[in-house]
Amino acid sequence: MTRVTSPENLDSFHAVIPAGGAGTRLWPLSRASRPKFLLDLDGSGRSLLQQTWDRLNDLIPAERIHVVTGTAHADAIREQLPDLTGLYVEPSPRDSMPAIGLAAAVIDAAHPGAVIGSFAADHVIDDQVSFAEAIGQAVATATSGLVTTIGITPTEPSTAFGYIRSGDQLDVAGAGSARAVTSFVEKPDRATATAYVGSGDYSWNGGMFVTRTDVLLGHLERLQPGLHEGLRRIAAAWGTPDQQQVLDATWPGLTKIAIDHAIAEPVALEGGMGVVPGEFTWDDVGDFAALQDVGAASSPETIWVDAGGLAISEDGTTIAVVGLSDVIVVRTGDALLVVARDHAQQVKDVVAELKRRGRADLV
Amino acid sequence: MTRVTSPENLDSFHAVIPAGGAGTRLWPLSRASRPKFLLDLDGSGRSLLQQTWDRLNDLIPAERIHVVTGTAHADAIREQLPDLTGLYVEPSPRDSMPAIGLAAAVIDAAHPGAVIGSFAADHVIDDQVSFAEAIGQAVATATSGLVTTIGITPTEPSTAFGYIRSGDQLDVAGAGSARAVTSFVEKPDRATATAYVGSGDYSWNGGMFVTRTDVLLGHLERLQPGLHEGLRRIAAAWGTPDQQQVLDATWPGLTKIAIDHAIAEPVALEGGMGVVPGEFTWDDVGDFAALQDVGAASSPETIWVDAGGLAISEDGTTIAVVGLSDVIVVRTGDALLVVARDHAQQVKDVVAELKRRGRADLV
Repeated sequence: MTRVTSPENLDSFHAVIPAGGAGTRLWPLSRASRPKFLLDLDGSGRSLLQQTWDRLNDLIPAERIHVVTGTAHADAIREQLPDLTGLYVEPSPRDSMPAIGLAAAVIDAAHPGAVIGSFAADHVIDDQVSFAEAIGQAVATATSGLVTTIGITPTEPSTAFGYIRSGDQLDVAGAGSARAVTSFVEKPDRATATAYVGSGDYSWNGGMFVTRTDVLLGHLERLQPGLHEGLRRIAAAWGTPDQQQVLDATWPGLTKIAIDHAIAEPVALEGGMGVVPGEFTWDDVGDFAALQDVGAASSPETIWVDAGGLAISEDGTTIAVVGLSDVIVVRTGDALLVVARDHAQQVKDVVAELKRRGRADLV
Repeated sequence: MTRVTSPENLDSFHAVIPAGGAGTRLWPLSRASRPKFLLDLDGSGRSLLQQTWDRLNDLIPAERIHVVTGTAHADAIREQLPDLTGLYVEPSPRDSMPAIGLAAAVIDAAHPGAVIGSFAADHVIDDQVSFAEAIGQAVATATSGLVTTIGITPTEPSTAFGYIRSGDQLDVAGAGSARAVTSFVEKPDRATATAYVGSGDYSWNGGMFVTRTDVLLGHLERLQPGLHEGLRRIAAAWGTPDQQQVLDATWPGLTKIAIDHAIAEPVALEGGMGVVPGEFTWDDVGDFAALQDVGAASSPETIWVDAGGLAISEDGTTIAVVGLSDVIVVRTGDALLVVARDHAQQVKDVVAELKRRGRADLV
């Protein structure tokens, strides 16, 4: 990764990485016990979480990078990120709003009105220069009081991602490309996606939110008062001897909700959201087709005879593929997946079937 | 297997099973070290060799069943066939004529003019009643002095097998369906195969030859005199203290040739071959498509999602197949094959590539 010059407005910028979700469409590589973000999926030598860390640590010091995760993966994360000082361990999964909100409330207590940005632990981004440029504009926009997202400029009419619809140009110093967010839309069908991309008003929703902590917590107080109250209570105890006891007592009662539904969608409708363009290559590596697209390589020992695709042999054994194109083969020590590339999304059905069969050991 | 009443003319009938050939189109199940005939490919609990033995032992006693194999597999065969008394171990592979000829010469020395039949160790046959009926007619025809083959009545215009062209009806007591063999033809293309099957004059060549030992050795003396002389020399020493020394000294000089080329084809042209129909289900299990056709079942743990085919997990791990039809997946502890059913023949190219790469451990 190229080390870039950080935008000048990141002096009080904090990053929050919610690290959760198994990635069931990447079974058998990803498991509940070995989620996608802990895996080196693209053969780079760094897990997706480590790559996310590297991207952020290139812009801000380790002390301002915060990771929120479940108890199951805390140790693995400490091992993968030895410089991490801000690890928040959730007693149970409550979706992304409590996770990000917890970090926001704790950061706000120490640094009132700091700007934070949340970044998924398991996405792939290429072009650090454009990433830094987008962060700089997003921080400028967030500083002005808007909850800000980075809209990834689409390279194709993908039906795998949600879209952000942009409205009027904003007038924010240091964010010449910022626009208001009109709305967020779910994954479209192909025709709709084509129209979106053609219009120039739609970008991919990469789930990156940049906001002042006080702005976020203010929206939360209004829209999800119970959740806000719980998070403030935990934050007040954070770093005190009562921390764990208050966390354990409060956490299970917090509303389980995604930040998209709790904040982004309603605030966008109120005119409180901005979007800045992300011109970098981005992928959420949502399935094996995406994994192939981001450059994952087949195991070197693979033999292709009138065949092509992606073949990953995690246990090092030789894979031979004959007479099949666009096929993806993934072998682990305890399982094997063979999937047509255009059916990559259906891998989740395999995981569902394994659960139905009581094969908790495999999911 | 149904025990059937043996035909009445099998009192001096001997069976010879040449057990050789790795079956490279069934990689990674079959290996040089673990050839097709030693495998339980159809999940019956008996290897193909054991099934061949069972079929013959249902008709004649164990003492009259002879197996010819290489040094590498002698121990495995003794283990699989505990009742076997007649095991002939070739010092090196010289193809089927020396193998069958060795047994013929040794049997002839003890039982001059006995009728022998040779049967591949790795074919699948269903319907023991029809098999016994065919053997009976073949022995009657062979007793009359013809080298006799069993022509399998085709069930489809297969391009995977060689064909036997039948000529005039023969007049042999006890073999009402016997006809002369006009010629043997190689695997045809689809159109030719369709014409063959439509004509009623062609049957599949299952490589089963039934002949009097003196007739076979007489043809051999005329057509392959050097080979005949060597086999007679070995047979003369067989069972004496000199057996191994004469075998080792003579064997490497024997002509490497298949019985088809050494005997069947030239003798057919001379009018010396007969054919009786085999009405049973037969397959040489030449590739994974054939293995599926003979009823091999997928491992019970396999998960199919919008998919179908054959999935064999030799190491017991779960296989999931998504969005692919007519696919065959074979997983062993050390290798994995994924092949489109209609490309099953090309699996041999994988073995060739592994050899090229020096992966003797995998072939």
